[in-house]
Amino acid sequence: MSKGVCAVVGVGPGIGASLARRFAQDDYAVAMVSRSLSYSRKLEKELGPAARAYACDVMDPDEVQRTFAEIEKEMGAVDVLCYNAGSGVRGAFDEIDLAAFETSWKVNALGLVTSARAVLPGMRARGAGSIIVTSATAAYRGKVQTSAFAAAKAAQRSLAQSMARQLWPEGIHVALMNVDGIVDMPRARQAMSDKPDEFFINPEAIAATAASLHGQDRSGWSFEVEVRPFQEDW
Amino acid sequence: MSKGVCAVVGVGPGIGASLARRFAQDDYAVAMVSRSLSYSRKLEKELGPAARAYACDVMDPDEVQRTFAEIEKEMGAVDVLCYNAGSGVRGAFDEIDLAAFETSWKVNALGLVTSARAVLPGMRARGAGSIIVTSATAAYRGKVQTSAFAAAKAAQRSLAQSMARQLWPEGIHVALMNVDGIVDMPRARQAMSDKPDEFFINPEAIAATAASLHGQDRSGWSFEVEVRPFQEDW
Amino acid sequence: MSKGVCAVVGVGPGIGASLARRFAQDDYAVAMVSRSLSYSRKLEKELGPAARAYACDVMDPDEVQRTFAEIEKEMGAVDVLCYNAGSGVRGAFDEIDLAAFETSWKVNALGLVTSARAVLPGMRARGAGSIIVTSATAAYRGKVQTSAFAAAKAAQRSLAQSMARQLWPEGIHVALMNVDGIVDMPRARQAMSDKPDEFFINPEAIAATAASLHGQDRSGWSFEVEVRPFQEDW
Amino acid sequence: MSKGVCAVVGVGPGIGASLARRFAQDDYAVAMVSRSLSYSRKLEKELGPAARAYACDVMDPDEVQRTFAEIEKEMGAVDVLCYNAGSGVRGAFDEIDLAAFETSWKVNALGLVTSARAVLPGMRARGAGSIIVTSATAAYRGKVQTSAFAAAKAAQRSLAQSMARQLWPEGIHVALMNVDGIVDMPRARQAMSDKPDEFFINPEAIAATAASLHGQDRSGWSFEVEVRPFQEDW
Repeated sequence: MSKGVCAVVGVGPGIGASLARRFAQDDYAVAMVSRSLSYSRKLEKELGPAARAYACDVMDPDEVQRTFAEIEKEMGAVDVLCYNAGSGVRGAFDEIDLAAFETSWKVNALGLVTSARAVLPGMRARGAGSIIVTSATAAYRGKVQTSAFAAAKAAQRSLAQSMARQLWPEGIHVALMNVDGIVDMPRARQAMSDKPDEFFINPEAIAATAASLHGQDRSGWSFEVEVRPFQEDW
Repeated sequence: MSKGVCAVVGVGPGIGASLARRFAQDDYAVAMVSRSLSYSRKLEKELGPAARAYACDVMDPDEVQRTFAEIEKEMGAVDVLCYNAGSGVRGAFDEIDLAAFETSWKVNALGLVTSARAVLPGMRARGAGSIIVTSATAAYRGKVQTSAFAAAKAAQRSLAQSMARQLWPEGIHVALMNVDGIVDMPRARQAMSDKPDEFFINPEAIAATAASLHGQDRSGWSFEVEVRPFQEDW
Repeated sequence: MSKGVCAVVGVGPGIGASLARRFAQDDYAVAMVSRSLSYSRKLEKELGPAARAYACDVMDPDEVQRTFAEIEKEMGAVDVLCYNAGSGVRGAFDEIDLAAFETSWKVNALGLVTSARAVLPGMRARGAGSIIVTSATAAYRGKVQTSAFAAAKAAQRSLAQSMARQLWPEGIHVALMNVDGIVDMPRARQAMSDKPDEFFINPEAIAATAASLHGQDRSGWSFEVEVRPFQEDW
Repeated sequence: MSKGVCAVVGVGPGIGASLARRFAQDDYAVAMVSRSLSYSRKLEKELGPAARAYACDVMDPDEVQRTFAEIEKEMGAVDVLCYNAGSGVRGAFDEIDLAAFETSWKVNALGLVTSARAVLPGMRARGAGSIIVTSATAAYRGKVQTSAFAAAKAAQRSLAQSMARQLWPEGIHVALMNVDGIVDMPRARQAMSDKPDEFFINPEAIAATAASLHGQDRSGWSFEVEVRPFQEDW
């Protein structure tokens, strides 16, 4: 018996997969939304009939609207939205491609607005729900090489604050996870093969924090939570 | 069978009592440290033989050292330290009593240093442990009437950061709970009798956050976590 | 004899006009860049031959490039860029028009990138220059009604940080003025006719801060400076 | 003809000396307050009859009161208070001497309260005055080795905020200079003899910022201003 529906936006072999697995284990039906189905189709098989993959480009507001309408029709109203889409173009402000700069903003900020709007009527009808955003340390400061990514994450964090201030009093928990470290994924392991296991964040720890945020009593909610490996230098 | 020892510093009918109850329910032996025994003796009876009350003025470094030595001797090494002592003298900087100003600093900052030092050898020996500090929004900004309290809480937060940066790599989890709201206690209810239930933070929600922090996988620790009622204006 | 060229982007009867007047008084040739020429043509007459008005939509990267090429050709390389363009659409995240949301981002963030890129070769050639951005308290937190504006200002501030970290070591001073209050302008006075003079920020005080930032010795630069009326509640 | 009286608390061959020189050049009578007179006596000779040295231990509230009473009697009411006293004991929280920990707090926090209280009646009588505090990056975060210094600076910054929120509306400008870098002094030069000139902050640049803060129009005051060398990595 399902506890409800969790939609994860941005599903690849890292945080997205761990979020999907965790909410599936916690007896949620999981809608996996990602640009390409190549990875989420595999997860679908792993997670069984309670998980479904949806293809959607979050940069396109109409596509977002259509996808969530489909999710609601096929799976039911969304109880938990994990917004994990993120784009990581690197480069100094005088070098970055302006189209990639705009893409960063669209994926991190515009897509959050349109996805949250899509699930809002259902959450409002029940006076409950969680919207959990995957943020990063870049949201707090712009460095030379993060000019595009940090600006997009700063905009996203500001939006999440606006959303929290509006939706908390309606019983909808908007929260932000500041992932501060390198997530353990095959690609990261290859690039940093000299690092010990403890250097990386286990994406399951991030998913555990998301589940914990969703489970909080509304008498004491958190908005902003770091997820940082104990060995991290910060 | 006890899971270990939790010491709560600062025990009264609010956050401190809820922390003691929660860790007792989670099968920890609980040492309750407070200036006066008048309230903690009652809690002792409620919580049974696994809980013990200790009288200690945290402003006195020698007394802190003696008290924790006694706890360790009678109950065993401390696994979880909840530092919940706090002093709330109000007043503008040109009005506050200088002795009360110093007391605020001693209770919030000096007492944290001496308490954490007292439990450190045991935690270090096991390469594990949690030190969870009760903070407040005042730690982030000084207002006219919080000149003493906010300065003490700012110092405490800075200290907790220094401690976290030092102790996390040793496997000891230092974390800060930013309690942003009015805790549901008899005194607060009387003073704000016109407020609905939902206005107040249930101290059990704060204790749940402390338990959740203690239970985090060290691959993804949090340092700073807000606990704020969903109806709060922030 | 001109001290150099100051370009003000975003010129209307408030901060923009005061910036133009101040740098003109300080013997700079002033290029006034704004979407419409209706106001800047008047300022041109007031300020005399040292000031020139340029029409430019900062949302269009090509137009920005063309405009600054024209400025450089007609007036010389830009020594001081005051980026004062800002868009203030208000509304909760579930109500705002998505086009207006994107416009906010383009005017505040994209336009800063393209304008700064346009003046960069000249500043680099001299190893000197100032880029001064008009920010606002909204950059630091998203409120319900500032969902679009705050997100855009947060992105802009992050960008300015990335630019500062890159350009300061090259001798180019990037700085941010956090305007915290209501600027004294005819429209604001009408809307808040009950407020005393002291409630408003005199835009000349903002321009004085910009001039002061430009004049700082590079041995001790500031990045972020508030401009707030003494009676403001903060 | 003197423009007024400036009191500098904490006078040694770095920021304190530059503040004294700068306000003397700007035609202020300068009271130099420091624990020992050994350095300030030399400055007295350099600066001539408009500058006077006073010995005072800012940790002692009575001594602070007496010293400022003497200054007022001999020189007149203080128009500008530069609070530059600072103590820099280094060490992790489990190693620092508890007396040194308390000294850090007293010099940075308690001494600011008592010094500001001493000049307050005179400033209030005129509805004007400036209180400028020398802060540091440590005020914003505690690192392992700055456990005592950072906690003291965090408390000091919080206090300055409380003071600003109270005193700005009365016309008294409280501000904080965040000195982010190594000040150019003989001792620092010796310890870091491999660094180029540009690595250091010229203390005259800090004094220029203090003078600029004092000169701001109250329609647009700043509270917090960084002073950071252009080559600093931040």
